Order: sequence, then structure tokens, then C-alpha cells
Amino acid sequence: MPEPIDPVALTSALIRCASVTPADDGAIDVVAAALSAAGFRTTRCDRGGIANLYARFGALGPVLGFNGHTDVVPVGDAAAWTHPPFGATVAGGELWGRGAVDMKSGVAAFVAAACAWAAGDPARGSLALLITGDEEGDSVDGTPAILDWMQANGERLDACIVGEPTSVETLGDMIKIGRRGSVTAQLAMRGVQGHTAYPHRARNPLPALARLLDRLASRPLDEGTAHFDPSTLAITTVDVGNPASNVIPAEGRATVNIRFNDMHDGAGLTAMLRAEAEAVAAEFGVTASVSTRISGEAFLTPPGPFTDRVAAAVARATNQTPKLSTTGGTSDARYVKDHCPVVEVGLVGRGMHAVDERVPVQDVRRLAEVYRAVIEDFFASS
Amino acid sequence: MPEPIDPVALTSALIRCASVTPADDGAIDVVAAALSAAGFRTTRCDRGGIANLYARFGALGPVLGFNGHTDVVPVGDAAAWTHPPFGATVAGGELWGRGAVDMKSGVAAFVAAACAWAAGDPARGSLALLITGDEEGDSVDGTPAILDWMQANGERLDACIVGEPTSVETLGDMIKIGRRGSVTAQLAMRGVQGHTAYPHRARNPLPALARLLDRLASRPLDEGTAHFDPSTLAITTVDVGNPASNVIPAEGRATVNIRFNDMHDGAGLTAMLRAEAEAVAAEFGVTASVSTRISGEAFLTPPGPFTDRVAAAVARATNQTPKLSTTGGTSDARYVKDHCPVVEVGLVGRGMHAVDERVPVQDVRRLAEVYRAVIEDFFASS
Ligand SMILES: [Zn+2]
Ligand SMILES: [Zn+2]
Repeated sequence: MPEPIDPVALTSALIRCASVTPADDGAIDVVAAALSAAGFRTTRCDRGGIANLYARFGALGPVLGFNGHTDVVPVGDAAAWTHPPFGATVAGGELWGRGAVDMKSGVAAFVAAACAWAAGDPARGSLALLITGDEEGDSVDGTPAILDWMQANGERLDACIVGEPTSVETLGDMIKIGRRGSVTAQLAMRGVQGHTAYPHRARNPLPALARLLDRLASRPLDEGTAHFDPSTLAITTVDVGNPASNVIPAEGRATVNIRFNDMHDGAGLTAMLRAEAEAVAAEFGVTASVSTRISGEAFLTPPGPFTDRVAAAVARATNQTPKLSTTGGTSDARYVKDHCPVVEVGLVGRGMHAVDERVPVQDVRRLAEVYRAVIEDFFASS
Repeated sequence: MPEPIDPVALTSALIRCASVTPADDGAIDVVAAALSAAGFRTTRCDRGGIANLYARFGALGPVLGFNGHTDVVPVGDAAAWTHPPFGATVAGGELWGRGAVDMKSGVAAFVAAACAWAAGDPARGSLALLITGDEEGDSVDGTPAILDWMQANGERLDACIVGEPTSVETLGDMIKIGRRGSVTAQLAMRGVQGHTAYPHRARNPLPALARLLDRLASRPLDEGTAHFDPSTLAITTVDVGNPASNVIPAEGRATVNIRFNDMHDGAGLTAMLRAEAEAVAAEFGVTASVSTRISGEAFLTPPGPFTDRVAAAVARATNQTPKLSTTGGTSDARYVKDHCPVVEVGLVGRGMHAVDERVPVQDVRRLAEVYRAVIEDFFASS
């Protein structure tokens, strides 16, 4: 029987891999080696140059999944770091490095918990780990590639935990039972170019664009729902690029990003934006065009037996009852939710993506205990 | 006594100079040579690399000025021209080339008229020609340089004709007794950058910018005045340059160009824009900044003896009574008007600045006759 895995040592080994998306730098091999040694069957589900791992222990149901990523965002200003971003320095009780919070610790913690559970020679149930090297990038060849491989090979999940940071102040104070969706829209208004001295011969598209953006930014999309905050719309850029102050341009473009709750879906919001844009364009006698990219639909794992069980396990391991939240950005839970109920449980998110990203060493160990509790409670009651 | 100057031949010689601002390519020398031969005292008033010419005939008052430019806008798509843009081809009764309309013909026509008048050994009055190579560019080293030189050397004008294109359908149907002013404003809104998933932690400046632009574009500045159309405001560009659709930007910038009548001045409009921007910024909790560049104030030479005299001369030469207008873009009349009453009289403006710019040969000859009539009537009645 192998030694128990130290989640801090495993996190450190992962931090030493410079796995800035799409690079892997050996990170997936680090976790694959640990899981193989613990008796997991591991399969690489690489796609499009991205390293991905599927690992399973057990042949019987139910199957509890864990999902996480080993890739990280760029280090930013490397010279500004107190300790090297890929050095995994332990100082002041903290483990420093890119990915210390988001989310090499999370992966190491659920790998350690899974291996410990496997070492107990469990009588029933299976664990399935979905670990990707493409979450911070486009994500198209990451978790979706693993899920595709699973579907093609008859592998399924009954429920899944995503190990992204979810806590706010102290570990376990918040878990996520859903996420808002995200849709990004490119809006364009097209008119007729001309000279500012003869505006009647031109048709300036920019007043229409300003009116549309003002309307979109000032009208609430909803008042929130039972489990979600109100949806939000942010104008992220407006660009014309006309250097000549005596020229009325032919076209103006803007981008808006909508974070939406479970009252909406991407198709409905696309239709709403198109209708608004066309209405304003008609007022001004110009032409509107709208194209959208839906990064993820809103989803909710409604509070019930599964979320209760996870929340109880978190409470047992951390001595506080987690808040069930749907706030924050998107995560790969948006893919997993099409296959099974999914809940996200993880570290305090503070400092992720920033210079001097670091995690208290004791939080990494405690997180492994949280996951261990979640596994035990899941199989005990299932 | 020299040969009378053929205005078509002189225009052709000018078109063959590739005098795209700030290049001169010998254009000023072409007119200086013709004027010297006719007995004008010529002085180069070059400044900042720009070729400028002051030429005077006569020592007595009153002094009638003519102002025009030999520089031209770029040719655009050279391959799209039917005849070479600097070739001065005569075909189908038209003279083709960049500057054929704006305004090498105008310069050639007033030079021809001035030389013909000088050849008549006039008993009284003087002509002063102000010809610049910098009207299509920034204009700072063009007509202002000549006016500065004149002031420093005790040269003055009693009235002035600017030879820019002013006619609409047929030569002489319109002259300009004023021009709207032009002010260009850079508007910026500044907030706090952030992530679109956490908009409450950011302060997006773009809704404020959209609201400001919508307000500015939809509120009339005035209803027009006795001699002017309503002032107009055009949004010419909006630029943020944020490529990340999940980032709320810290700043957005826009440019507006106002063409204003004699109800306004640049300082008043600057104050209005600043007040509007600050009011909107306060509504949204962001910061506004406004900076303006005043290209020219509005001006009017009120209808009276001078405009009547010019209009009568145009009517005599063209058999139609010109409309007195204040429409169109700015011209160097905005500088001359600080020194004396000024009226603009010139060709039909159609095709200026475009590919295949060309002028009917007979219009060039007729324009020289118009200027000759203006000179005669001016001195006859003064
Ligand atoms: Zn993450
Ligand atoms: Zn011109």
C-alpha cells in the first residue's frame, strides 16, 4: 500500500510545472503518477494539444466525480513577485506560486482525498477524476474533451464536485450550487460615411450606437431569482477607429458581456439584443447587426439531498455551515452540469490570478479533509 | 506688356505640380513668375516648411485682396483615375486633375484677372494676392503666416475675396458671406477597471459615455439664425480598445465635431460640453474630462455695400443672381475675416477631394471673368 499523499507536497510539485495555458509542462503526469500508484486506472484524453486526464477507482456505482484544472493564468509582472511564481516557496505558513489558489491546491487536495479513500479498500462506489490543462483558455479542448471521451467509452457520473475556489473569507464558508451564464455580444451600427460639414449627406451610425448602449446599460434585465442575483450587462468596449475629426464614420462597433441568471438563456438574450438593436437602428435610419458567443448557460443544482449532503460534509470538516451561492464567474461546471448534478467546493479565492498568489498551508490540508468528508458522506448515504 | 494670362493654361501648369500638402513642388513659383511678369511685387512668406506668396500691384488704396491655396488633398486610389491626377489632361471639354476644382483653377482665375487689371494701368487702388501652400493641412503656417507677415510690414486689406469653390449647380449661383465655426472635442470618461463577473467592484465609464453621447447627439444646439442653418454636432469616433470581453475598462474616449453658427463661439461650446459631461459623470459616479480644439469661429460679413457689389459683379458676369450663403466647411476666410470684410466666390464644388476631380474648361475662363468684374466693380464704386 502506497504512502498517503501529502496534498501540500503534491501542490508544490504542480506549482513547479510552468503550466500556463495551453502549456502542461508535466503537470498532468504529476497527478497521473500519484493516481496510478494508488490504483486508479488513468487515461489521457488529450485533444488539440491540451493534456487531459481521466482517472477512475472502482467498478461499481454510484460514481462521484471530481473536476479541476492544472493550467494557470500567466504570471503577469514576474519581477513583482516576492517569491518565484513557479518556485513553490513555503514562507510565513503559506505556499507561494501561480496556481496556489486557482487551483493546483484544489486538484492536489481531491487527488489526496481520493487516494486515501481508495486505500481504504471501499466496498462500493467509484471515484472518477476529470483533470484538464485547459480551463483558463478557451476550454474547448479541456473538460469537454474528457466528457466526450467518457461518453464514447461508457463512463458516467452520478454527481460531481468541481474544486474551484468558492470560499470568501474562511475555507468552507461558501459553496456554489450554480453559476450565472455568460454571453458576449458584438453590436454594430452601420450608416453612410460623410463629412461633418455636410451631415445631411451622411448617416452617422454613432448616435444610434450611443442610444442602444445607453438603453442596454440602464434597463435592468431582471430582479434576481430565488437562488441568483440580478443579471448584469457590462459594455466592455466601443470602437470606431476614425482618426479624422471632420469625417462621419460609416460604422461603429461595441461589445457587451451579460452575466445572466436562470431566468434567461443565451438564445433568448441574443434575440433580445437583436430586437433592441434593430429598433434603435430603425429610429435612426441605420442598420444594426448583432452576433453573440455564449460562453456558458446559467445552471442551478437545486438545493436537495445532494447539495445537503455536500454542505453537511463541509460543515463537519470546517465547523461552519456553507452558504449555497451562485455568484462569481463561469467555471467548467457549465459543462459537467449537462451530465449530472454538480456542486463547487474549494478554497478562499482571494489572490487568484494576481501577483503573489499564495495559500495558507493549513487550508490545503483542511481542503483535502473537506473532500474526504464529502466522499465519505456521499457513499455512506447513497 | 506681357501676353494676357490664359487661366486654363495656368491651371494646367499648377495641376502638373504634385503639391499635396505640405509639398509645394514648384506650384508657388508658377504663380509668382506669372505675377512678377505682370509687374506685381512678390514676397515669399514661407513658414514651417510651407511655401506662401504675397503679391501686390499698386501703391494706393483701397486694397482688394484675393486669397487661395495651391496645395491639394491626396489623390486617393491613383489607379482609379481616368486620367493621371497630375496630368492636367483636357478631355470632353473638361480639365482633369487633383486641384482642378479645389482650387488651382480658382488661383489661376484670380491671378489671370489680377494681371489683366494691372495691364490696364489703373489709376487707383491696389490688389493684394495671398496664396498659400497650406490650406488642406493644419493651416497654421499658411494664410496666417501671410497675414502675420503683412501686419509686420504694414500691408493691409480693405476687403478680400476667397476663391474657394462656392457654387452649387452652375458657376455663380452661390457665394459665401460667412462660414460656420468648427470645434472638435475630445471627451473622456474614467472609472475603475474590473471583471464583468463582479461589476459591483468596478465602475464602468462606458454607460456614462453612451449617455453623454446620446444627449449631445439628440439635443439641437439652436434653430438657426438669420443667415445660418442650425448648428450641428457629429460624433466622429468612440474608442476604448479593450480586447477582453470579461474586463470592464477604466476609460472610454469619444470625439465630437460641432459646426456652429453665429449664436455660438468655441469657448461657449467648450463650457457647454464640459458642463454636460460633468453632469453625466456625476450621475454615474465617474470622472469626465473634456478638451477642445477650435478650428475656426463662426463669422459673417453682413449683407451690405461690399456684398452687394460682389453679388452684382457675379450677376453681371454669369447672368444669375448669386444666393448669399453661410453653408459648408471651413476655409481660410476664418483667418482673413479678422482683418477685413471677406466674401467667397468660386467654382461649382462638385467632385472636389474625389477621384476624377475635373472642371469644365469654360468654367475656368468664366471664373476669371467673374473675378475681373468683381475687381472692376470694387474699384469703380469705392
Ligand atoms: Zn480555476
Ligand atoms: Zn480649398
